[in-house]
Amino acid sequence: MRALHFDRQLMLRDDYPDPAPAPGESILRIRRAGICGTDLELVRGYMGFRGVPGHEFVADVLDTRNPALGGRRVVGEINASCGACQSCLAGLGRHCPSRTVLGILRRDGAFADYLTLPDANLHVIPDSLPDESAVFVEPLAAACEILDQCPIQRNETILVLGAGRLGALIAMLLRAEGYEPILAGRTPEKLARLAHLELKVALEDELMPGFDTVIDCTGNSAGFNRALALVKPRGRLILKSTAADGATLNLAAAVVNEINIVGSRCGRFEPAIAALAAGRVDPRPLISATFPLADGIEAFDAARDPSNFKVLLKPQ
Amino acid sequence: MRALHFDRQLMLRDDYPDPAPAPGESILRIRRAGICGTDLELVRGYMGFRGVPGHEFVADVLDTRNPALGGRRVVGEINASCGACQSCLAGLGRHCPSRTVLGILRRDGAFADYLTLPDANLHVIPDSLPDESAVFVEPLAAACEILDQCPIQRNETILVLGAGRLGALIAMLLRAEGYEPILAGRTPEKLARLAHLELKVALEDELMPGFDTVIDCTGNSAGFNRALALVKPRGRLILKSTAADGATLNLAAAVVNEINIVGSRCGRFEPAIAALAAGRVDPRPLISATFPLADGIEAFDAARDPSNFKVLLKPQ
Repeated sequence: MRALHFDRQLMLRDDYPDPAPAPGESILRIRRAGICGTDLELVRGYMGFRGVPGHEFVADVLDTRNPALGGRRVVGEINASCGACQSCLAGLGRHCPSRTVLGILRRDGAFADYLTLPDANLHVIPDSLPDESAVFVEPLAAACEILDQCPIQRNETILVLGAGRLGALIAMLLRAEGYEPILAGRTPEKLARLAHLELKVALEDELMPGFDTVIDCTGNSAGFNRALALVKPRGRLILKSTAADGATLNLAAAVVNEINIVGSRCGRFEPAIAALAAGRVDPRPLISATFPLADGIEAFDAARDPSNFKVLLKPQ
Repeated sequence: MRALHFDRQLMLRDDYPDPAPAPGESILRIRRAGICGTDLELVRGYMGFRGVPGHEFVADVLDTRNPALGGRRVVGEINASCGACQSCLAGLGRHCPSRTVLGILRRDGAFADYLTLPDANLHVIPDSLPDESAVFVEPLAAACEILDQCPIQRNETILVLGAGRLGALIAMLLRAEGYEPILAGRTPEKLARLAHLELKVALEDELMPGFDTVIDCTGNSAGFNRALALVKPRGRLILKSTAADGATLNLAAAVVNEINIVGSRCGRFEPAIAALAAGRVDPRPLISATFPLADGIEAFDAARDPSNFKVLLKPQ
């Protein structure tokens, strides 16, 4: 099959081996896949990744032993866990220590014609949900994870720092759930586009400190220090970015101001699918471009361009 | 009066001006003062401090307009707040943005013959509580703050990382409150002394990851990365150390494992006084040496010696 493969550099390969499903797994044919900040980090060396990246997708079930899945359109949770360890038994397979992670850790991902995932990871999506929305289920689930982890009150002042694809999606979700986040970035033109989506936006340089909750979606290590400075004492800083490089951080500020810093990663798919299916969140305006898989390298370049939001691949 | 004064270097001065109480403040004569890690950081440049350090003390009230305080033996909360701002009205004067902090921020501290503090900051201590215990009220309150901030369950696995004066005190408090912390350090000899205090100890190099809660008391920036690696996914990392230098941290680990990092500083004095007065915590075995104020420089050297726990100054 065709696949975007990374081994010190990203290359389009036409001869990549078709995936072989393990017992309990199905073969999926990708319809759309989204490029996210983590993918850009992976091809910069994050986690020493080698393989096919890509973990945001919507696909057709091509080959399965599960009659409930045959021929259906699905999205898939990216952590394939053992099912038997303490984390798995506690319902937190996302933290299973022996997990593989689609397109991130020991499992080839979605920037290809096909992938395999355990049937237990797959969610059939409603026919009414277009591919262009369904491909956002995974990052939207990561946004929903914030509310699963933190008891944020409706009247809190919330800042989403970093007006990229992830920050915008999080702000959209929070708005849909009755919060009033401010989405802050550095580029007036980009903020203007987000303001058209009825998001409350602000220039980062004009922010005053004192937010109850700051959500760091800057995707760069310097963003943490900036975010930390904007939280009020005893406030909450939620980290949604992963960055390949370490940052020089002065944790004294977190101690002196008794900040609660919450690392936040993948979330449950159910609330994300529900929010999309009900139309409470419509992420399609965030799609900046869609490329065929054959132009995958160009798609990565477009995803790196800070003037773009979400870039999709469309293998079929 | 005599005072240990820091202005790029620490010097004992005999001619330091006596403190002048503002309205609502009393003059205190220091009986004992404790040197803590923050003091050692301050004289390394932390917070650009200039003045008299020292914020752990027990003292006699020498001059006051408050009849309830005259002649009494007191300890004092170190944050002198405005009383009118949002933080103060919420009962969090410790986070008042215009506060002064005894021996730390715009207010001379306890390594002197006298100091002043607002009457509202003072707590009369029971006659039964010896000076050598009462001087631990402030750091013990900082230990109690952990339980005020975090709903730690009795059956959690708890690691206190850093077997110095603060780590030992925190482990003592947690034990007294029904928890079973492991106190980990690097020096077998020091751990052996702590084991005699009925604390469960371990060599840092022999720890296995997976603790529900890790409390970082290492006092150095490298300790954070070590502590982060020892917390289980979705676990809690409590930061009790302030360090002058920034650390190079890879926050990706906090995001991937969804760690909850809690900055923790000063605490309420009431639970600390209660724990000492009831004998639930007896910190006196942690006193490694007591120096007269005239030997204050030598006392700082002793406090820096990693084989020591708490070093006290005794002006009178």
